[in-house]
Amino acid sequence: MIGTPILPEIRELIEQRNFSALQRLFNDWLPVDLAELISDLPENEQAILFRLLPKDVATETFEYLEVDAQQNLLNALTQKDVTHILNSMSPDDRTAMLEELPGPVAQELIKLLTFKEFKIAKTLLAYAEDSVGRLMSPDVLSVKTDWEIGKVLEYIRTHGHESETLNVIYAVDDHGKLVGEMMARDLLLSPLDKKVGEIISEDKIITLTATQDQQDALEAFKRYDRVALPVVDSNGYLIGIVTVDDMLDVAEEEETEDIQKFGGIEALEEPYIDLPLLELVRKRAVWLVVLFLGEMLTASAMTYFEGELAKAIVLATFIPLIISSGGNSGSQAATLIIRSLSLGEITLQDWWKVMKREILSGLMLGSLLGVIGVFRVIFWAMILDQYTSVWLLIALTVGFSLLGIVLWGTLAGSMLPMLLQRLGIDPATSSAPFVATLVDVTGIVIYFSFASVLLKGVLL
Amino acid sequence: MIGTPILPEIRELIEQRNFSALQRLFNDWLPVDLAELISDLPENEQAILFRLLPKDVATETFEYLEVDAQQNLLNALTQKDVTHILNSMSPDDRTAMLEELPGPVAQELIKLLTFKEFKIAKTLLAYAEDSVGRLMSPDVLSVKTDWEIGKVLEYIRTHGHESETLNVIYAVDDHGKLVGEMMARDLLLSPLDKKVGEIISEDKIITLTATQDQQDALEAFKRYDRVALPVVDSNGYLIGIVTVDDMLDVAEEEETEDIQKFGGIEALEEPYIDLPLLELVRKRAVWLVVLFLGEMLTASAMTYFEGELAKAIVLATFIPLIISSGGNSGSQAATLIIRSLSLGEITLQDWWKVMKREILSGLMLGSLLGVIGVFRVIFWAMILDQYTSVWLLIALTVGFSLLGIVLWGTLAGSMLPMLLQRLGIDPATSSAPFVATLVDVTGIVIYFSFASVLLKGVLL
Repeated sequence: MIGTPILPEIRELIEQRNFSALQRLFNDWLPVDLAELISDLPENEQAILFRLLPKDVATETFEYLEVDAQQNLLNALTQKDVTHILNSMSPDDRTAMLEELPGPVAQELIKLLTFKEFKIAKTLLAYAEDSVGRLMSPDVLSVKTDWEIGKVLEYIRTHGHESETLNVIYAVDDHGKLVGEMMARDLLLSPLDKKVGEIISEDKIITLTATQDQQDALEAFKRYDRVALPVVDSNGYLIGIVTVDDMLDVAEEEETEDIQKFGGIEALEEPYIDLPLLELVRKRAVWLVVLFLGEMLTASAMTYFEGELAKAIVLATFIPLIISSGGNSGSQAATLIIRSLSLGEITLQDWWKVMKREILSGLMLGSLLGVIGVFRVIFWAMILDQYTSVWLLIALTVGFSLLGIVLWGTLAGSMLPMLLQRLGIDPATSSAPFVATLVDVTGIVIYFSFASVLLKGVLL
Repeated sequence: MIGTPILPEIRELIEQRNFSALQRLFNDWLPVDLAELISDLPENEQAILFRLLPKDVATETFEYLEVDAQQNLLNALTQKDVTHILNSMSPDDRTAMLEELPGPVAQELIKLLTFKEFKIAKTLLAYAEDSVGRLMSPDVLSVKTDWEIGKVLEYIRTHGHESETLNVIYAVDDHGKLVGEMMARDLLLSPLDKKVGEIISEDKIITLTATQDQQDALEAFKRYDRVALPVVDSNGYLIGIVTVDDMLDVAEEEETEDIQKFGGIEALEEPYIDLPLLELVRKRAVWLVVLFLGEMLTASAMTYFEGELAKAIVLATFIPLIISSGGNSGSQAATLIIRSLSLGEITLQDWWKVMKREILSGLMLGSLLGVIGVFRVIFWAMILDQYTSVWLLIALTVGFSLLGIVLWGTLAGSMLPMLLQRLGIDPATSSAPFVATLVDVTGIVIYFSFASVLLKGVLL
């Protein structure tokens, strides 16, 4: 929070080599703020500042840095410092860093780990990307059900220092099988002579598995309001813990992916500004070309109606207005339905209820735009002083087309995400541009169909 | 997790009035699952089932219900039960319910509170909607800095039962001013004769204020990875606590608002399926009409070029293809930039860097679509067996227009969100439909400008 504004001051102190002043200043700082400060410094000054930090603060600060800055520091620090940091990092943060580093670099670093940490790192990296295993920390404290609370408190004081969290303590049987959980709250409120087994509620424990998708874990955290959840293997043995702070990051990542999909781009795996330009263009080009090829059908449709167009060139004038209205109403409907599906507010079983709502919405919105459209055409003709009864028919063509297209856009936009979900495809794939393209093509057909009926014998 | 599949079985037990079997069954259930089950039952059966729950489970289950179901139960239960539930609910969950209920109903319920709870409820409801005060619970445990850990543990065992969380304990001075915090972890790991003052780090405490926006609180939780944050008044006195479980809900709400804005809809305040139809239509109509009025400029632009159109009707054929490509590339750019701004990956100072990236991206994407477009036109003419040198010029017109429009769409889509942010308007307002509309109008002008240069003397 204090980071950037005093950056120039700090850089001056670095230049003056006034390290004691810097150390005094940083004494009050939180690791996350130190990490932000370090990221804002030029690369060659980052290590200077980092070396000034006390060892435990240094490791925690390191955990908060982006991978770029981490890699820069790893290059600049002595092997001894690197070894210390790697071995004292939380296993989950270390996994997150190792998976982002280039393969050979990660391999070199893993060699610096002690045998115990090496085994942990190898195990965690073996889990699939986006699996719970990659977020998990194996540093979890477990106690036996027949222990008294007094004994548990003493055990924690001596053995709990490595544990990822002490907000939840797990109870296991003699074989290490998870049988229950105890919140710090229960532990702190219970009389000292009560047994663990009397406090834990054995049937109600919620667990994760290491191979599960992180998205599922996020759902479980949201549903059960937990600060940590235990991870068990297929036999029910406790193998680790996931804490809620990692979940806010997962939530953010999932959200970004959804939003990017919805904007018609493949999900980027790195921040926009860090992604190499060619990669950025490739991610955008794929969908842009697919949509372009789809949109080519509009040209084919228009060619089909070229005869009508030649006779009544005025019809062309309203095409962008009409098809874009369909696209806009489709985008709105798709946005609403995709979000409601993802929040679980509606399910596939509700399709008929949704359809009824959307037909009514489409009729109302379409009528509204249709009426505005009719007035627009008539008003325009009057201004140009060209108003004749033919213009009334043109106005009606525009009006009815708008009604039809908005209704169709609304229906397509709402039903397409549900259809995709039914087919096992992520509904967010039916992005705003995708729906708009679909509606454009049909929009032209709807428009010219109304025109050929209403204007037959008049203009056509 | 167990809820819905066994719903028929449960309804049968209710019909048979086999309450003991139901009670045995529910013994193993978590409140959140009980709440889901109750929501799935018809209204008249909800209260029957709810009355079977033990008192403490009942209150917790009640807290998980949606407001609709809560209101239904409040109507069906005896005044005594309602009084018990209202007085034993967490203050933050109670505030959330009272603020959603119709005013007169909430007033009636508040009268059932004890004097102590009444004062709490009034205080919390006095804070603005979306402020930290509405999420806060005043049930927070504080200890003195000169206490020994042993004394703190004893104090918690006797006085901690009401506290919203025991994962963090706050240290206050003799006047109640917050001076530091202690994680359950610190408490559990410290020797019993250590003093609180030796453990807490006084300078580094992060606090919230009750009048602060919930969005700010969310940022603080994400940044500092906390499970709870203290709320202080303007003089630094501890008045409450906010816990992270409420933050996941805030995050979800903010996300929904962003997504809806981006889809070109005013943010809905209720789930899609619960919103009255007319309200739903109104929320969509506002932007749809604004966009429609904007899009009318396309008709004006086309009228301006009607002479050219009449001479070369074939030009009309490609209009939807060309303007939609601009809209799509604009949507992509806007999505990327809005999301990056909201994640803090880029700031306004980066505008020039972003602009350079987007000019290059736009040139590459535009060239790609332009080349495809040129081939499409030539290929089409050959198939129709009409290919002449005029068609080559038409193809070039389409190709250059695509390049120009994609470049323009990319630039407009990326710069508009930054401009809005600069003006203090939420960048998410530059929704996909908004950008598409903007690009459509200019797209027509770009297209006909290329046409009049390239086709002069040939077709025009």
